[in-house]
Formats: sequence, C-alpha cells, structure tokens
Amino acid sequence: MEVIKVGMVGLGTVGTGVYRMLKENRDIITKKVGMEVRIVKILVRDREKDRSASVPKELITFDPADILENDEIDIVIEVMGSVDLAMDYITRALNNKKQVITANKDLIALHEEELSELAYKNGRDLFFEASVAGGIPIIRTLKEDLAGNRIMKIMGIVNGTTNYILTKMTNEGRDYEDVLKEAMALGYAESDPTADVEGLDAARKLAILGTIAFDTKITFNDVYVEGISKITKSDICYANELGYVIKLLAIGSNSSAKTEVRVHPVMIPKSHPLAAVNDVFNAVFVEGNAVGEAMFYGRGAGELPTASAVLGDLVAATR
Amino acid sequence: MEVIKVGMVGLGTVGTGVYRMLKENRDIITKKVGMEVRIVKILVRDREKDRSASVPKELITFDPADILENDEIDIVIEVMGSVDLAMDYITRALNNKKQVITANKDLIALHEEELSELAYKNGRDLFFEASVAGGIPIIRTLKEDLAGNRIMKIMGIVNGTTNYILTKMTNEGRDYEDVLKEAMALGYAESDPTADVEGLDAARKLAILGTIAFDTKITFNDVYVEGISKITKSDICYANELGYVIKLLAIGSNSSAKTEVRVHPVMIPKSHPLAAVNDVFNAVFVEGNAVGEAMFYGRGAGELPTASAVLGDLVAATR
Repeated sequence: MEVIKVGMVGLGTVGTGVYRMLKENRDIITKKVGMEVRIVKILVRDREKDRSASVPKELITFDPADILENDEIDIVIEVMGSVDLAMDYITRALNNKKQVITANKDLIALHEEELSELAYKNGRDLFFEASVAGGIPIIRTLKEDLAGNRIMKIMGIVNGTTNYILTKMTNEGRDYEDVLKEAMALGYAESDPTADVEGLDAARKLAILGTIAFDTKITFNDVYVEGISKITKSDICYANELGYVIKLLAIGSNSSAKTEVRVHPVMIPKSHPLAAVNDVFNAVFVEGNAVGEAMFYGRGAGELPTASAVLGDLVAATR
Repeated sequence: MEVIKVGMVGLGTVGTGVYRMLKENRDIITKKVGMEVRIVKILVRDREKDRSASVPKELITFDPADILENDEIDIVIEVMGSVDLAMDYITRALNNKKQVITANKDLIALHEEELSELAYKNGRDLFFEASVAGGIPIIRTLKEDLAGNRIMKIMGIVNGTTNYILTKMTNEGRDYEDVLKEAMALGYAESDPTADVEGLDAARKLAILGTIAFDTKITFNDVYVEGISKITKSDICYANELGYVIKLLAIGSNSSAKTEVRVHPVMIPKSHPLAAVNDVFNAVFVEGNAVGEAMFYGRGAGELPTASAVLGDLVAATR
C-alpha cells in the first residue's frame, strides 16, 4: 500500500494528541484516504524531555531541515506555536511543495493571506481548521458548505476560559475574581489571563472567521474589544431576572453598506441556542441568505478536539 | 471567463430556490469557483405551468436527453424527487461522465452505495448533502471534517414536522391531535402525515447518516421505529416536572460489539443542547473519540436551506 509521509513540527499537547489519534484511528483513516498516512519525523526543541511513553525515539529530530527540506515528506503539520519561527518553517515547507496544516491561531490571524497566496503559487494548500475552535469545523463549513451563501452575520462563543467563568458565575452566583482564581487553579485560565478575559483571544479568532465569512481582509486591529473583567454577579443576576444570560460574543456583521467586527459581553435571551452553550464549549452561530440560521457547537480547545481538526485537514490534504 | 454548465432536473420548490440563489449570489460563487457557474437547461414535466416569473423560457426542456446526454453539460442537479425515474436519470448522467448532485432522500436511502460506486467507476462524484437536514452540512462534516474520528454515537432531531408538533405541545400545553391539525393547515405537515409522525422519514435519514458515520451499510429496515402519535400532553407535562423535554430522536450507536439504529421519542434533560432545538429546526449531535461532543444545528428543510446545501455541493463539484 502506498504511504503518505507526514512530518510534524512540535510535540506539545496538540502534537501528542495528533500522534495518538492517528495511531488509534489508523484503520478508519487508511480506509478513508485509500493509503496509509504515516508520521515519519517529528521536530522537537527540548532534547532533555522524556517522550519514551508516547513516541518512538527514531521519529524525533532536532533539525528542521529533516522535515522541511526532506523530499520524502508530502505533508507538514505545524503544532509548535509562536509566530516568527512558525512563519519561517511554513514558508520553507510550502516552497518545498509540501501541503501544510497548522493549528497556529496567532500566525493565521496575522499572516493567513500571505501564506495562502504562497501555497497557491506553489500549487499546494494551507489548512488551518485547528486554529479556531478545534472541535468545530467552522472554517471548512464557511469556505465550502456555505459557499453558496451571502453571510450576513456570525456570532461566536469562541473563548472557553471566559465561557467557563461566566457559566460558573451564572450557575453558582459567584464573583468574577473568585471564579477566575478557581479557573487558574484548574488550568482553564493561564497565570496571566489577560488575553482571554479581556477578549483579545476572541478578537484574533474573529479576525480569522470574519476574513473567511465576508471574504474581506479583517485584522485584529479592526476588532472593537471589551472583555468580561468588569462583569459582576449582580449584572448576571439582573440579566437572569429579565430572561437573559450574559455571554462574551465575537460578532461580525456584513452588508453592502459596512462590515462590523466586535467582541464584548452580550445579554442573550435564554431561548437563543447560544444561551445553552456552557462551560468550556464553543459555538458559532451563522446567518446566511440561503441557509438562514445555523449553529455549530463543540469543544473549542484541548488535545483531542484540536487533533480532530488537524486530522480532518490531514485527510483533506491527501486529496 | 470559463463557464461551468449545469443542467437541473426538476423545478419545484428546491429547484426554484437553487436557481434563485445561484443568481442572487452569483458574484460570491464566481469568486469562490474562479469560473462562472451557469444553469443552461432545466427539465420540467408539466408543460402548462407558468414559470415566466422565475426562469427564462429558453432554459426549459421537456426532454431528459437535453441534459443527460448533452456533452456541453458538466454537472447535473437532480431535484425532481421520486425514486425510479431519478435513479434512471442519475445513472445516465454518471455514465455520461457528469458530476451529480441530488437532494433526493428516498433515493439515497435506498441506492447510495450503488450510485456512489457507479460515480467512482466513471471517475465522478455523487453529492447528496441536501438529502438530509438541508440547512446542516452534516454529511460533509461526517465524511471530511470528522474523518479522523471513530464515531461512537449520533443523535439527531431530523424531522421538522414532529419537532414542530412536540414544541407546540410543550410550550402551549396542547394535545397532539390539535397541534397536528394546525400543522397540516400551516403546511408543516402533509395531508397524510404518517411518514413524518410515525418516524419513517427520520428512519430514512438515520439510515443515510449511520451508513456514513459508522462506515457500514445501514438500511431503513435495520432501524427500529416508533413515532410520536401516542405522546400525550400529560407525558410532556410529567417530563417537564422532572426536568426533561420529549423529542423524537434518531439514534445511532456503534462499538466493536454492535451497531444500533433506532428512532423513538426520548426524554432529554433540559440542560442538553438538543433540548433547545425547537420548532422546525433540526440538529445532529455527534460523539467521536477525538472531537468529543459536537452539535450541528439549522433548518432541516425548505426552499432556501436546501438550496444552500445544493450550492455547497455545486461548488465542491466544480473542483
């Protein structure tokens, strides 16, 4: 059987998930692709880390050229994070005629257009489903399934940390600071939670989604941003009495007159499908002139949901 | 600019929607495809019907060969319904090397495997996103986006008529017979509502979805079916008191031990995302071993949502 050879750049949480699921679901993927898809090299940075439990030693390399300039490799998966180095690696991979899959939100928010053009010039594709809301295939849905629609609006709960905090505040009547501390202790919020709680992470994701949905270049700086750090338990309590819940929404709207993109807390009627999206779950609500209202719901992050997105891209990249 | 020529078989509700949205969103679709996609022939049966408002007369034909055996046509869209005649037309189209898109649930539930094989033999594709839950791109999601997952479970609200009836019974405390009559008057239920209310329509859709999700042939006869005609307003009232709503679910589950497919009324906790799917909306909840839990929500039927699915397939078929 023919083998498609894959090089992976990075072996953190997502990389480990990709390696594991590719192994666990090998039978299914082989049948779908009609060929074996095999990871043959993995680039890591830290020589000291013990990976014996997860990955055979002979796959590990410390030299990027072993993957990026390796003629045997057909597809490169970038799951290392960071912007500049990832940009350099992906550029090299595309110029060496490899299909490229990335899970790198920060990179895609800044350089998607440039990298997609480079891919096109090289007759290859750039896939980045995992860069926004891992467990929700929203990018391919917007690009392909809804390709016949004029998209008027997208509204997303695209940050798990803030949705977890708001859900806890709502269900348990607790204060913001109190729940934030708990989220940090549980690893749902980072030690510096600014990017999440101030809406910056959601704004980057909105820039990516809006660019695709409205087919017009939207950057992080175009997005009006307001986070959840000023929401109090009494705001939530008043909203509840009026029949609403408070969610941090990333909202994009588009008409012939103007395109608007903003992230801020919103009062949503309890009957709206977005109101039932709780904890670390994400959802993206879309309005198109043919499909009407549609919503896509799933886990926004995590080892396996993100791996699911990378593997979906991997199957697509083999075509 | 190069033109991709499309022939459409049928000009009922869905066909009219496809023609209209292709016209209204021509700029978007042309940009996505990189070529103009043009409907050049439409097969209709009734010579007397006045279509002057919607479609130019010169596109209309009464001879199937004008489309199926027309060398100029690249893609055939089948939106006529029925099984035997549609089967004959699609077979001819595939043998004449055309890409084929169909919205025909009854046909696909019976003959998907056979037609997909015929497409494969001819080096063409068969697309049928519109055959299940028009406004929800669930077929391509299962086939492509979730291709790296072992799917353990699907649970769908896939029949709009029964969901409308159950929603009304729940929200307004009314009897089944009373709401059914109203649904018939509003055109949400057919004059013979058996296929909807007894779960047969949902079972056909489950056969299609289960075949794809579990990669094993499932037919209508494999599905255990129980409809909603015996649900009373007191059933709904008791469920409500216990914190549940009653929904007609199409459930497929798959493990190495066995595959199960069934359609019947289910008590769902109000906190479950499927509980908030109301009126004529559809939703499909999926559990995969990588993605975890995901849900896809939208309109299940109607002129424009179904047209959206056909146009998504049309863009895919041009690749």
